[in-house]
Amino acid sequence: MVQAVKWENGRLVLLDQRCLPERVEYVQCRDFREIAAAIKDMVVRGAPAIGIAGGYGIAAAAMQATREADSLDQAQALLREAASVLSSARPTAVNLKWAVERVVRKTLAVLDLAGSGTANTGTMRDTGHDTLGSPVLEKALAAAETEARAIEREDIEMNRRMGAHGATLIKPGSRVLTHCNAGALATGGYGTALGVIRTAWGQGKISMVYADETRPYLQGARLTAWELMQDGISVTILVDSAAGFLMSKGGIDCVIVGADRIARNGDVANKIGTYTLACLAHLHGIPFYVAAPASTFDLSIPDMSQIPVEERAESEVLSLWGRDMAPKGARAFNPAFDLTPARLISAIITDKGVIRPPIGENLPRVVPGEGPNG
Amino acid sequence: MVQAVKWENGRLVLLDQRCLPERVEYVQCRDFREIAAAIKDMVVRGAPAIGIAGGYGIAAAAMQATREADSLDQAQALLREAASVLSSARPTAVNLKWAVERVVRKTLAVLDLAGSGTANTGTMRDTGHDTLGSPVLEKALAAAETEARAIEREDIEMNRRMGAHGATLIKPGSRVLTHCNAGALATGGYGTALGVIRTAWGQGKISMVYADETRPYLQGARLTAWELMQDGISVTILVDSAAGFLMSKGGIDCVIVGADRIARNGDVANKIGTYTLACLAHLHGIPFYVAAPASTFDLSIPDMSQIPVEERAESEVLSLWGRDMAPKGARAFNPAFDLTPARLISAIITDKGVIRPPIGENLPRVVPGEGPNG
Repeated sequence: MVQAVKWENGRLVLLDQRCLPERVEYVQCRDFREIAAAIKDMVVRGAPAIGIAGGYGIAAAAMQATREADSLDQAQALLREAASVLSSARPTAVNLKWAVERVVRKTLAVLDLAGSGTANTGTMRDTGHDTLGSPVLEKALAAAETEARAIEREDIEMNRRMGAHGATLIKPGSRVLTHCNAGALATGGYGTALGVIRTAWGQGKISMVYADETRPYLQGARLTAWELMQDGISVTILVDSAAGFLMSKGGIDCVIVGADRIARNGDVANKIGTYTLACLAHLHGIPFYVAAPASTFDLSIPDMSQIPVEERAESEVLSLWGRDMAPKGARAFNPAFDLTPARLISAIITDKGVIRPPIGENLPRVVPGEGPNG
Repeated sequence: MVQAVKWENGRLVLLDQRCLPERVEYVQCRDFREIAAAIKDMVVRGAPAIGIAGGYGIAAAAMQATREADSLDQAQALLREAASVLSSARPTAVNLKWAVERVVRKTLAVLDLAGSGTANTGTMRDTGHDTLGSPVLEKALAAAETEARAIEREDIEMNRRMGAHGATLIKPGSRVLTHCNAGALATGGYGTALGVIRTAWGQGKISMVYADETRPYLQGARLTAWELMQDGISVTILVDSAAGFLMSKGGIDCVIVGADRIARNGDVANKIGTYTLACLAHLHGIPFYVAAPASTFDLSIPDMSQIPVEERAESEVLSLWGRDMAPKGARAFNPAFDLTPARLISAIITDKGVIRPPIGENLPRVVPGEGPNG
């Protein structure tokens, strides 16, 4: 199974998803700022995967502290700065903030414990430790690595459970439409929406996966098709605007997508185009499913009106591979995500089980106080 | 004003729309087979424009007859073959067939008249005419050119009238969404949907035109943006899948598109993605308008179930500029058009006036027996 995010020998190794499917290339990051830049530039993408990368970003910062920090204060400041820079690399997905905060909390706890035993403002050299070898900082680093690894491992486990729960919704012979890439490449492994598809395919229930190409970044054509073809799963690519026609011809039995953030009432933020598919599925009486781990739920917000939608550079729409596809000077509107109200969603598939409508009411029973703000 | 199709000195000069907006290049065709290939390969596209090109294709065949035909029979056979080859270059738009039949009918009438005066099976050399200079064939050629020119001129006039009728539907301050290119480039000039937009813009009623990029051929990003920018009309490009989100934010006041064929009940075939926009407009309570000249109506068919939808090469979806955007061996579904039922259409704007719902009932009053099969 392809692995988009790997922590190896104190550096983060990211499969460069901008190069797929042409080339399989990796980017290595040692500095948390490089990791934040890789998240921003979409070397790594997909809400769970950027969460995992963010968690390892704190591990990278903890490692930087072992090399650079002269005092506990400096180490704490470095970690807090890393948390701030990493969390704000992309605004819409909530997993990033959630994972960064989870790892930095554990890491800072080690330093706090050490600080409470000595003069908090003293330098480590004052207390006789060598900066590089400081046992306190080594402990903090170990805590960061352990927590980030736990997030990664849990993510894969959650995806497998989500696959099992979600596959119960898929009828034999199904032609399933998916959008963007909510697969192994977008997660620690196995995938959310593609995890459900993998499990259902393994059970012989799926006859064809239709993958929206997903402009402007082409995650469907480049990543989802690549991932499914590697697993021998039948996939057909279509332009985003053809999904409605295919539904009208009776060619789609259900839609499954991932999510970048889910509000308390079940409203979902996901890749631009998701809302259109939900509208189309609604009009055609086709089930519309969202697959997402607990870390996607933001229980601090009542509904989608509170979710910031990232607008990305116009050039992503206006050019491809450095070549213009529109006239010089043309303008573009380029929201990276859109918002789908809960009323258009047939069910949210989580690792804890399936949440049926009314989603807002049923969510607490399945995901009690989970998520970044639970 | 840009002119996509020009008949000059016995050859058809086509603005090569595959090169826009990067380069303004022209393709010259003397042989009707070259014209059919140019239509098939989308050097020229847009239902009215391929109709005009098809009409001139018969003029090209008539000119070939003056050079090649040894008898009236040969000339008639050549013209009939040209009509068949040109009409079937693309299957969905009905204007092509309509224009080709209109021009070939006039052209054959000249030959029939000549044939009725002499032995129909005799060669022209037998009757003393030189093949190249045959006055009968010259007369037939003149008839073909006159009829094809009439179609072109009428098309521009119809577009201006359509613009005037359609602009009455546009409210001041409107943000108008359009799909594909139903502009000067798709017609003899001025455009259908873009003709309405041009007129309404001239009246100060439009604050922004949103142009769907229109994958896979990018007619919106490449052609519509180019055409509108040349006229100084404000335009913003968006990926096809972002239209729903923009509507949900209240950012679109109406949708205007062209049409490739309209059935007797008002069902419309148009560029892939049109049906999705109609569904979205319906759900958001936004008016959805279709602008089309009389030649778009196919009164011989009761509804859209009789309209053949062209499926084009998978490579159009899977690669761009000769470079793969999907994995090697990937499959694609590539319908060039889709079908929008009349119930989702707020009005059809024609050169004769605006047809309101119920469109099937009101159509005969506005377009009485017009169109290719009226």
